[in-house]
Amino acid sequence: MSGPNYTQRRSRLIRAFKALELDGLLVTGESNIRYLTGFTGDSSWLFISSGATVLISDSRYTTQIANECSGLDVDIRDARKLIDDAAADVIRKAKTKHVGFEASHLSVAQHAALVTKVKTADLVATGGLTERLREVKDKWELEQIRAAVYMAERGIGVVRSSLQPDQTEREIRYILEAAMRSFGAAGTGFEPIVGVGPTAALPHAHAGDRRVSESSILLVDWGAATSSGYRSDITRTFITGKFTKQMRTVYETVLKAQQKAIAAIKPGAKCKAVDAIARKIIANAGFEKYFGHGLGHGFGLQIHESVRMSPLSEQELEPGMVVTVEPGIYLPGKFGVRIEDDILVTNDGHEVLTSVPREFDDAIVEFLA
Amino acid sequence: MSGPNYTQRRSRLIRAFKALELDGLLVTGESNIRYLTGFTGDSSWLFISSGATVLISDSRYTTQIANECSGLDVDIRDARKLIDDAAADVIRKAKTKHVGFEASHLSVAQHAALVTKVKTADLVATGGLTERLREVKDKWELEQIRAAVYMAERGIGVVRSSLQPDQTEREIRYILEAAMRSFGAAGTGFEPIVGVGPTAALPHAHAGDRRVSESSILLVDWGAATSSGYRSDITRTFITGKFTKQMRTVYETVLKAQQKAIAAIKPGAKCKAVDAIARKIIANAGFEKYFGHGLGHGFGLQIHESVRMSPLSEQELEPGMVVTVEPGIYLPGKFGVRIEDDILVTNDGHEVLTSVPREFDDAIVEFLA
Repeated sequence: MSGPNYTQRRSRLIRAFKALELDGLLVTGESNIRYLTGFTGDSSWLFISSGATVLISDSRYTTQIANECSGLDVDIRDARKLIDDAAADVIRKAKTKHVGFEASHLSVAQHAALVTKVKTADLVATGGLTERLREVKDKWELEQIRAAVYMAERGIGVVRSSLQPDQTEREIRYILEAAMRSFGAAGTGFEPIVGVGPTAALPHAHAGDRRVSESSILLVDWGAATSSGYRSDITRTFITGKFTKQMRTVYETVLKAQQKAIAAIKPGAKCKAVDAIARKIIANAGFEKYFGHGLGHGFGLQIHESVRMSPLSEQELEPGMVVTVEPGIYLPGKFGVRIEDDILVTNDGHEVLTSVPREFDDAIVEFLA
Repeated sequence: MSGPNYTQRRSRLIRAFKALELDGLLVTGESNIRYLTGFTGDSSWLFISSGATVLISDSRYTTQIANECSGLDVDIRDARKLIDDAAADVIRKAKTKHVGFEASHLSVAQHAALVTKVKTADLVATGGLTERLREVKDKWELEQIRAAVYMAERGIGVVRSSLQPDQTEREIRYILEAAMRSFGAAGTGFEPIVGVGPTAALPHAHAGDRRVSESSILLVDWGAATSSGYRSDITRTFITGKFTKQMRTVYETVLKAQQKAIAAIKPGAKCKAVDAIARKIIANAGFEKYFGHGLGHGFGLQIHESVRMSPLSEQELEPGMVVTVEPGIYLPGKFGVRIEDDILVTNDGHEVLTSVPREFDDAIVEFLA
């Protein structure tokens, strides 16, 4: 397995900003810098032009940069120099005149300070140039994401096989994290959500002290991260006791909404149209107001990246994009159900990367009575 | 132990922005919102004026907000509405005319979008209003930080008592994390750094596969987080085998620099002056170029907050501030030593909150030969 081709990625980025009549770009988004160089540190910026690629960092990172990005030019400052002063120097030396910056990754305050320092070039706002490249995953990235899916799926296997009624949400979270690590994960893709009953009705709950036995619903939303930084993102809702008719109806509605939305995923499909398919099925079942979030999102080096599968997204899916599809129904104070899989857009349709069973009968976990 | 007084915090903030002739403030920094309301979610903004306090969020958080911030007005949107549209509505309804925004917590892109939506008020950049309040910790916050120190110190006790030559950096990290959790931590204060030998020379290393036996130096930089979100931040460097004269010299130099800097901490002391004390001792010993970062930083809800103990910081210490003091010497490819403690500025000087032994002899860990 060969590694990522950083030079090619940067060449694509240069083409993109040249098309905007810029002769340089200051990259300040941490994941964008990692994508373009392999550098995993923080507090650093990347300057790119046709003639120069310079990582602007500080002496804490000298050795790490030599290891992670050998061959890259670096501008190392000590604790007495500010990063925007360093950036101004790099821009001046590169003789660039129209330099883009990432408007989503520079605060108003950082921008105001930078403008006073950079006297040899115009600074021009750009939006999502690197994010746009990152939307379509290359072969190496897909290998990383598949590995992150594997780690997560092995992890939930351990959780399920060791599940007991007296376990708390927090205990389950720790078992899951340790299991994913044992299968090679560098960490979690994000803070795992483990919710019993009413906690499962909070789409972004923290794992707490509720025990599995307190309800018949257990929701787990989890993912692994590889050492290369790529993530997976899956949700399953388990039935851990006697279930009501409503629980089954809600579960089957969410699953139907999810499966119909997944079926529509192919190159050219509009994100908002895929979202609408799931949203309509949930609305027709009478649960419209209990599904308040978007249908899904791209992921990779970050757990939420472009594209967004929301009612507001006009974007079209393309081969190589990887998105979650994760409708949910949340009944406040009672329970919630969400089912989430990771989907790769292929040349002629899609491939579901995740394989944990998701049918209602598969979700039932039986304990000794 | 009574909880935080959010109303009082918000009153102080209102006084601060009224002094700038603003009649409202849009708070977009996540930790600032938590500090002012107790809300622990993301993707939400807070609007404050004399007459209104409104948390602008979405339906994923309805129940969580009711639990965490009961009594607070909320503006809940669904997946079809953008947060800046919601904010514009809230600002219009509040009839405020001069509304501050947090220039460090709004990107250039977010600001540009917001300006087009808010038609009933001026938007004025503000800097660090809430951060300034957060610099000085109240009684309840100090209890939380002391708890986070306790959890971290119990955790390193487990690591040290179970240390073995064949353990890897990563294994030690996991033992430490599990131990802190067992003493009540909700999680780590940040990703723990565990570095053996050359890895200890990387100030921001990730725990990897090096084994303790590969060097005589083991650096651990770790902290706990309480469920209330407060952190601790400590570093110890252990001597795990035969040590060279240089190792001892470096260790003693760092310790002396740290202790002399701590001794200077009191109300009115300038941050850059405290930094200079440590930096001079390290320079006099010939290691100036191997100490590239600032001396320390404030912490609390975030692991790095205002104030900064750097050569560039003109700020003066005040009673109630809590800062790290963490000089280090890093010899690339060989080893690094850093010693870090958490210091509370008191009315007449300071209190060292951390108590893990730090003398050279205390740092020596002996294994069976």
